[in-house]
Amino acid sequence: MKYSKIPEVTIMRLSAYSRVLNEALDRGEKIISSKGIANLTGVSPDQVRKDFAYFGEFGVRGIGYNIVELKYNISKIIGTDRNWRVAIVGLGHLGGSLVSYPGFLTRGFKMVGIFDVKDIGEKYGDLYVEHIDDFEEIAKREKFDLGIIVVPREAAQGVADVMVKSGVKAILNFAPVMLDVPVGVELKNVDLSMFLEMLSYYMSLNN
Amino acid sequence: MKYSKIPEVTIMRLSAYSRVLNEALDRGEKIISSKGIANLTGVSPDQVRKDFAYFGEFGVRGIGYNIVELKYNISKIIGTDRNWRVAIVGLGHLGGSLVSYPGFLTRGFKMVGIFDVKDIGEKYGDLYVEHIDDFEEIAKREKFDLGIIVVPREAAQGVADVMVKSGVKAILNFAPVMLDVPVGVELKNVDLSMFLEMLSYYMSLNN
Repeated sequence: MKYSKIPEVTIMRLSAYSRVLNEALDRGEKIISSKGIANLTGVSPDQVRKDFAYFGEFGVRGIGYNIVELKYNISKIIGTDRNWRVAIVGLGHLGGSLVSYPGFLTRGFKMVGIFDVKDIGEKYGDLYVEHIDDFEEIAKREKFDLGIIVVPREAAQGVADVMVKSGVKAILNFAPVMLDVPVGVELKNVDLSMFLEMLSYYMSLNN
Repeated sequence: MKYSKIPEVTIMRLSAYSRVLNEALDRGEKIISSKGIANLTGVSPDQVRKDFAYFGEFGVRGIGYNIVELKYNISKIIGTDRNWRVAIVGLGHLGGSLVSYPGFLTRGFKMVGIFDVKDIGEKYGDLYVEHIDDFEEIAKREKFDLGIIVVPREAAQGVADVMVKSGVKAILNFAPVMLDVPVGVELKNVDLSMFLEMLSYYMSLNN
């Protein structure tokens, strides 16, 4: 992972702020205070201000932040001011649910390829299931930026290799296994049980 | 959220270490170095040692950590040394996939109740879908510790209220909305697009 000035936890919070800003816009609001953002995200107002200071966003004292401007600045930092082309491999229960995950498209991630080793030709929304063996060929046309892996652990490294070979620059891996990818390809592992474990930690403290 | 000495990011890493320790045990290993854990999780060896120092785990210099012992100590901290009883509400694509998510049971989270407003009586593994209106009654018998919400955003607060009333102590919320829960109930929001946004951030740095 390369050096970057903004810590990963800040990026996670920026992502959460950005969601809250969208909701405020939907309600017709134009200005929001750091306290308002704090309330809606469960982060302290001080932390909100510190996070925005990373990119020189200070708002107007006693008034707050212009929501449209703030949202635009955050999306420029996170990189969601552009459209990323996403391919998903593995259409089991979880993979199938991710194809139509509503949060993706609205946040700049467009699903443009879905792959598996079975049910080839089956339709998900506007997309047809393609065989993983055709990934590289289809990638030439579809120019995938980002790949999501939702296959069994034994198959995950093979899929990652094909993605890397096909020019995918970032991989979100749901398989419970550490993958090898070359420098220059970003990898993020998601383990949903981690979230339960964090809750488990807090519940244990209470007991 | 209550005060606790161990930062949340450390808990997240402990969760990742614990997964790696399980894998090492599966391979028949008995001892692991902080460097070994570091390699397998993408965390620096220094950070691994710092994280373990939170609970006074120092290993043996030049030898490493006893895996079984380390795993046990981590699970005591995270609270996965006991069994948590989990109820899930909302059996759409994502919710349905979580019922059988393999990582949950193996890490101490037992799914004991599944609820929706439709498809009542349908079977998922050993469980039958119950109506959300019966949640409180069933909770008396099943004693849910932890609730997972995977319903549309408009329905999420109502479900959270029922869970709280029924004695659920922690909620994992997948609905894209901030929920109000009383002090003493832990809440964790999961937004899967956040992971893509973190990748998006790193991809933007590369361009």
